[in-house]
Amino acid sequence: MEDAGMFLEKVKSEGLAHLSYVGGAGGEAFVVDPRRDCEIYNEIAQSRDHRITHVFETHRNEDLVSGSVALARMTGARIVHGDAPPGQRVEYAEMAREGDEFRFGDLRIRVLETPGHTDDSLSYVLHDDEFGATPVGVFTGDALFIGDVGRTDFYPERAEEVAGLLYDSLQKLLGLGDQASIWPAHGAGSVCGGGLAEREFSTIGYERLHNPALQEPDRDAFIRRKLGEHHYKPPYFRAMEHANTVGGEPMARMATPLPYLGEPAEWAGSATIVDVRDTTDFLGAHVPGSLSVPVSMIAGFAGWMLDYQEDLVLVAASEEQATEAARHLARVGYDRVRGRLATSMPAWAAQGRAFRSVAAVNATDVSGRRGAARSWTLLDVRTIDEVREGAIDGSRHVYLGHLPKRLDELDRTQHYTTMCASGVRATIAASLLLANGFENVDVFLGSMGAWRAREDE
Amino acid sequence: MEDAGMFLEKVKSEGLAHLSYVGGAGGEAFVVDPRRDCEIYNEIAQSRDHRITHVFETHRNEDLVSGSVALARMTGARIVHGDAPPGQRVEYAEMAREGDEFRFGDLRIRVLETPGHTDDSLSYVLHDDEFGATPVGVFTGDALFIGDVGRTDFYPERAEEVAGLLYDSLQKLLGLGDQASIWPAHGAGSVCGGGLAEREFSTIGYERLHNPALQEPDRDAFIRRKLGEHHYKPPYFRAMEHANTVGGEPMARMATPLPYLGEPAEWAGSATIVDVRDTTDFLGAHVPGSLSVPVSMIAGFAGWMLDYQEDLVLVAASEEQATEAARHLARVGYDRVRGRLATSMPAWAAQGRAFRSVAAVNATDVSGRRGAARSWTLLDVRTIDEVREGAIDGSRHVYLGHLPKRLDELDRTQHYTTMCASGVRATIAASLLLANGFENVDVFLGSMGAWRAREDE
Amino acid sequence: MEDAGMFLEKVKSEGLAHLSYVGGAGGEAFVVDPRRDCEIYNEIAQSRDHRITHVFETHRNEDLVSGSVALARMTGARIVHGDAPPGQRVEYAEMAREGDEFRFGDLRIRVLETPGHTDDSLSYVLHDDEFGATPVGVFTGDALFIGDVGRTDFYPERAEEVAGLLYDSLQKLLGLGDQASIWPAHGAGSVCGGGLAEREFSTIGYERLHNPALQEPDRDAFIRRKLGEHHYKPPYFRAMEHANTVGGEPMARMATPLPYLGEPAEWAGSATIVDVRDTTDFLGAHVPGSLSVPVSMIAGFAGWMLDYQEDLVLVAASEEQATEAARHLARVGYDRVRGRLATSMPAWAAQGRAFRSVAAVNATDVSGRRGAARSWTLLDVRTIDEVREGAIDGSRHVYLGHLPKRLDELDRTQHYTTMCASGVRATIAASLLLANGFENVDVFLGSMGAWRAREDE
Amino acid sequence: MEDAGMFLEKVKSEGLAHLSYVGGAGGEAFVVDPRRDCEIYNEIAQSRDHRITHVFETHRNEDLVSGSVALARMTGARIVHGDAPPGQRVEYAEMAREGDEFRFGDLRIRVLETPGHTDDSLSYVLHDDEFGATPVGVFTGDALFIGDVGRTDFYPERAEEVAGLLYDSLQKLLGLGDQASIWPAHGAGSVCGGGLAEREFSTIGYERLHNPALQEPDRDAFIRRKLGEHHYKPPYFRAMEHANTVGGEPMARMATPLPYLGEPAEWAGSATIVDVRDTTDFLGAHVPGSLSVPVSMIAGFAGWMLDYQEDLVLVAASEEQATEAARHLARVGYDRVRGRLATSMPAWAAQGRAFRSVAAVNATDVSGRRGAARSWTLLDVRTIDEVREGAIDGSRHVYLGHLPKRLDELDRTQHYTTMCASGVRATIAASLLLANGFENVDVFLGSMGAWRAREDE
Repeated sequence: MEDAGMFLEKVKSEGLAHLSYVGGAGGEAFVVDPRRDCEIYNEIAQSRDHRITHVFETHRNEDLVSGSVALARMTGARIVHGDAPPGQRVEYAEMAREGDEFRFGDLRIRVLETPGHTDDSLSYVLHDDEFGATPVGVFTGDALFIGDVGRTDFYPERAEEVAGLLYDSLQKLLGLGDQASIWPAHGAGSVCGGGLAEREFSTIGYERLHNPALQEPDRDAFIRRKLGEHHYKPPYFRAMEHANTVGGEPMARMATPLPYLGEPAEWAGSATIVDVRDTTDFLGAHVPGSLSVPVSMIAGFAGWMLDYQEDLVLVAASEEQATEAARHLARVGYDRVRGRLATSMPAWAAQGRAFRSVAAVNATDVSGRRGAARSWTLLDVRTIDEVREGAIDGSRHVYLGHLPKRLDELDRTQHYTTMCASGVRATIAASLLLANGFENVDVFLGSMGAWRAREDE
Repeated sequence: MEDAGMFLEKVKSEGLAHLSYVGGAGGEAFVVDPRRDCEIYNEIAQSRDHRITHVFETHRNEDLVSGSVALARMTGARIVHGDAPPGQRVEYAEMAREGDEFRFGDLRIRVLETPGHTDDSLSYVLHDDEFGATPVGVFTGDALFIGDVGRTDFYPERAEEVAGLLYDSLQKLLGLGDQASIWPAHGAGSVCGGGLAEREFSTIGYERLHNPALQEPDRDAFIRRKLGEHHYKPPYFRAMEHANTVGGEPMARMATPLPYLGEPAEWAGSATIVDVRDTTDFLGAHVPGSLSVPVSMIAGFAGWMLDYQEDLVLVAASEEQATEAARHLARVGYDRVRGRLATSMPAWAAQGRAFRSVAAVNATDVSGRRGAARSWTLLDVRTIDEVREGAIDGSRHVYLGHLPKRLDELDRTQHYTTMCASGVRATIAASLLLANGFENVDVFLGSMGAWRAREDE
Repeated sequence: MEDAGMFLEKVKSEGLAHLSYVGGAGGEAFVVDPRRDCEIYNEIAQSRDHRITHVFETHRNEDLVSGSVALARMTGARIVHGDAPPGQRVEYAEMAREGDEFRFGDLRIRVLETPGHTDDSLSYVLHDDEFGATPVGVFTGDALFIGDVGRTDFYPERAEEVAGLLYDSLQKLLGLGDQASIWPAHGAGSVCGGGLAEREFSTIGYERLHNPALQEPDRDAFIRRKLGEHHYKPPYFRAMEHANTVGGEPMARMATPLPYLGEPAEWAGSATIVDVRDTTDFLGAHVPGSLSVPVSMIAGFAGWMLDYQEDLVLVAASEEQATEAARHLARVGYDRVRGRLATSMPAWAAQGRAFRSVAAVNATDVSGRRGAARSWTLLDVRTIDEVREGAIDGSRHVYLGHLPKRLDELDRTQHYTTMCASGVRATIAASLLLANGFENVDVFLGSMGAWRAREDE
Repeated sequence: MEDAGMFLEKVKSEGLAHLSYVGGAGGEAFVVDPRRDCEIYNEIAQSRDHRITHVFETHRNEDLVSGSVALARMTGARIVHGDAPPGQRVEYAEMAREGDEFRFGDLRIRVLETPGHTDDSLSYVLHDDEFGATPVGVFTGDALFIGDVGRTDFYPERAEEVAGLLYDSLQKLLGLGDQASIWPAHGAGSVCGGGLAEREFSTIGYERLHNPALQEPDRDAFIRRKLGEHHYKPPYFRAMEHANTVGGEPMARMATPLPYLGEPAEWAGSATIVDVRDTTDFLGAHVPGSLSVPVSMIAGFAGWMLDYQEDLVLVAASEEQATEAARHLARVGYDRVRGRLATSMPAWAAQGRAFRSVAAVNATDVSGRRGAARSWTLLDVRTIDEVREGAIDGSRHVYLGHLPKRLDELDRTQHYTTMCASGVRATIAASLLLANGFENVDVFLGSMGAWRAREDE
């Protein structure tokens, strides 16, 4: 009655849609797939009077910097990871094998090898020995999501093989029984899977019945399904894979305020200016040459837009927003934030400095231009999957992530109106064009949403 | 991609071991069984960009003041409750019936009548229509817990009938399928069930296999099992039932600091002094006549010890502790906290005021007294279930909750050593004896735990 | 050594530049001129183990809702105020007279009547009796500021008389001795005085030497100086005076999140839409018809722009910003905030709803138009004092506060470019024009600052 | 109107009664005498949109670890310090001389050499050039306090000389004029001065009139006064002086929770157990051999009781209390906190582990023993100044700070009752005796306060 008991908490990192877990019993705790800003796990464990003794990694993450090494250093915990071919084998962990077990009071964690998404993928099955041997649940990493399964496009030359491996792994997971809860490493919005449910709780039984990827009649059909999928692989994945092989560097504590950079002389020319304010703030006025990457878009697009070798200077609406942006950047490995601009845009302009605005146009404007404009391009920067569900006639498609490398395909003398689903990604695209010498750029605010609403009238 | 999505969060009230839930999709949210300090649900919903439109009650709570009315007033939400005979029917809610449905974006809530614990008990089944008709999970209230089922002792004259009703309700729940997650209204430590698991996540499938109460071979065996159980019913349950029939009063906001009461003249004689500090603080020195009820014990024992008609004055180690104590008291309906003592005990003593200490004795002391002492009683205040698992020979058992009404059975001239599992409840008991004229009282610190450890040596 | 001791803390309300104080000794505390969201004083006092027993008002505030009544209700404190003619006499306080004294441990507060700014103005002299009778400092209200003195334009028909009264009061204050610290009711940025220093700490001695208003050779010269001053009196002052005569209503707690208003149908037409986002956010895109009043401008301009009888709907960039805005509005008496818009502007536009942008122009644009444009007006909305220090040739001056009542003087068919010092007030002006049927409006971002920087080149 | 302005904020470190300051204008800020946990200065400066460019040290601190080096590393600020003879000269700062000036917008800081307390003592005079050349105030370090002046006992062989130097320095400070505010480095409760006022605000004028140390008729009388004073010098001062000569190590961030130490085997024998709970908690039950040092007593007594070479294990009532204790320990250089005990004392006892209590006795008990007891000693551990103001007949005086080195003067077979002003320091003393083999020890709770109250009756 006076005991702290058993616990399991999910820690969600917005933007990355990354899910991690901390749980424990009897005073000892474990963490599954910690993120880089990892103090939160220790805080949760200690608030429950538990000590973290194990960090379980389901695989080598490619979309974020793992916090395992930092967390182990902080707590003395052991890190557990699956085996992999040389070169992909993480250097900082103990290798675990099928059937290995770990105890935490009445809880027991059992290792299941579930390759396919990566060769080193493990799932961790949870048992409560006070009640019985049947699995309570399973940490599935990127093998099985809620509403989807892991992507298998990381080894193009072994495409069929790894899709098949994933099929086999999924059978293993289904064998745990309908009663088992599942706790995956990602939720909806992740770049690690396309059709994830927004719902963040499910069971083996529910997924068996309703997960579209588990409805294929046989192994071959499943492999064909996987081969037909399309995924984007941002260039920053390679940096993450390397960081997570040697062991991610601990993240500088984000509570420390960012230094203020009062004078452009301190950074102009030698740093990329990243405007993390809201989309409309950027449209209203921004520092010429800056890139629009609102905080919520950092996880999705910083890895496409920003160079790891460049210093970054932030333009933010508040200290809180700057700190949050720096945290999101650090989660995907961008540590070279030199500071943030010391002024608001009105104050900046009142110092006699140059600023730039971007016009926001609406569906009526776009409709009018479609008929009339000549040297005008409606540039759609959504994903290919979104475009397939419907696009505006006459628009040109370049996925936002690919735009930095494909700028030379576009005629800088033309007039461009960028669009996406609402205008947020379109503004990122517009900022990229403007920073690269395009002169005549505006944004379709409301974008495909507004267009469809207009058609519904 | 730029959408807030679907969510379900559990809100746990420590002490009461009360579990409540807030979830939603598509901008509209629901709450299941809100507690009295109910702003947290609105804060969670708003942080997800959702608006609370429905409050679902699984039954009329008897162990805490419901926050439904206050939450509805704050948000404009509708309150949904099950039907009951006149006199038990709540006055502030819409009555729901088997099969009624409510939509929240892609989520759908379906009503299941599951009487037994109370006549008005409902369960709420959750579906995700984007994926399929199979239930995702179910809010089971006090019908089905993790590791146990609801108590059925509230209608002694209908004992067999209601146990049978609960059996039928449980069959209905099992029919939802092994894949369904379960979200009950209480976790381990609740007075609403004895054998609850410490684990706070489970499924219909797991409970079907491992919940002891679901292993009985048939309806009759289940009824016999329930009739053989023993439960305590604190006197405050009646006040809660009344409050939750007419609709709980909103709780005064706990952020407001409690007034300081500097002079005993302001309260001595007219208020009960409740010492919410840790057990050892009370043992070290306390205000004569005060009752020891550490913050973590308020949910369990305030309802046995404190009179709703009495003003309360708190003795706390810090402002934070006083505020936390006031919140816990308010959750079970104690709103008459007049303030807190303005000094620490050393400062109190340095003002020349009287104080009292209680000696802490250990297992060796107790063992020695057992042989020697005559007019000495070792008073065990644990539950009958704990006593049945083992007690010290020669000890006298009076359950702590029953002690206030049974003080006259004890000889005030004797020497008492109180004991429980660790010493926390024993100190509550000692404070009660001392406040009622007993002179010679000490506490067995470590209690049954220390005794067993000594035997193991 | 184990004692909490003596304390004095300043509480500053940004925007209003309002300064209030909480101090105490020996367990009893006082507050001088509390603001409406008054819990902070009690929190400070309690963190020091003190109880608030007195609230001292230096005068009936005209620029904010006093928190005295709410604070007295919360703590049981007495409210002390100066006497005034019937009709202006506050109804909720004890009247204090010259020489009245109040004790707080070793501290002593002595009343000084210091009329001039208002008839009821009191100053409160602080003594530390442990050390000697010389004043330690004085709470000067709106009689003596750091770098300026109170305005005396509230009784136009008695202008000379009240300026003379203030002169006499200031002599009284100077008589307290050079060693006395001064603690006024306002700092730089207040509408209650023009030339306030940005420095928030000073002494009688320093002000005697350096306060420009104290350098006049004699009483007559001082009166002439005061008669020559220019002050704006926002229309909301009248409402504040009334509220503070009968006793300001306690403020609804701001921790409660604002309700979300998802559908314009819930409010369009029946409420004023107030966009409290940053200036550039408004320029980028806003709800047609909304007024731009960034959070930091609420204290200065809500009282000119908003009607107390109208419901308000906020457009904010985050929940935090909406809450902060609601708090600032409540401080000046606007309690009718119905909620905040549930979406960001991109999402709003993606729902097919109308939005509007405002172009930001720079100094080069303005310079060009000056020569060329015909039906174009450069509208300068700064104060008359700012304009006197320099304006752009050909600009037309209407003070922002006066603009709502002078719209009919302007030709709605013309093209307007609004300007101020940086562009923030200019955007408020632009929003007002656009909401009132003007079609062709843009904003000179950088405004006078940018213009001067351009001239310096 | 849209500008952040000028600011000056005091940062107070409770326990040490250390006062530090952060101020600035025009975007650049300075800090005076930062403490070791120095992030707060940067947070304040940044919240005001200022960047810290200078750290001013008034002297080499002997009672705490300076945060200058850490703050300079974090912000790039320059550190300014006074010159001193080799060996005492700090190694990390620029040397400043009388008359050196530093600008921050309209603010100007001018250096004044004010030796006496130490040879390197500087004062920093603040001017506001917008208003005039007269000093606004002065940062006086340990030269001039409110109600007292600095101690001059650090160079016993030069006692007269340094007292004379301080006299001259004080004349220099008085010459700044009555209007100047003073901002010293310590408030009441500091070990750096005896008669400090509890009031934390004053002026040169007020101190000239009322500071007892400034009332001596001439230099010689002042020197005699200083030679007659008595001060304790805790042994940890030497460690602080060394740390602050080479530059204090940055403090590990205190937000990181302390590791839990579940098993005594992890630390018993190799670490000092420090019980930072409240006094009554320790009296009620504690780990045998542990020292009682409540959080509020760490600044005053850790330096006398704890060895820098020993690892420390904390016993705390909560995670927050443990973290606060670790912060206080780090401020005086104790970085070897290995963790905190994982259990409450009831749980500790329930594991069968040994615990100990200390009886609290009252004035009646003490009075009775005085007449009767033989081998009994009433041990008064207050300062010599407190004892001179009154002591209990027959008590034996050993200052608490000296007790660790004077234990051998006491007869371990006797019965000791420890006392101080209230019982808090008495409990520290009792814990020290018990940890060193004394068997028969209790505490006079209420101590001198209770004794006097008894006499008043």
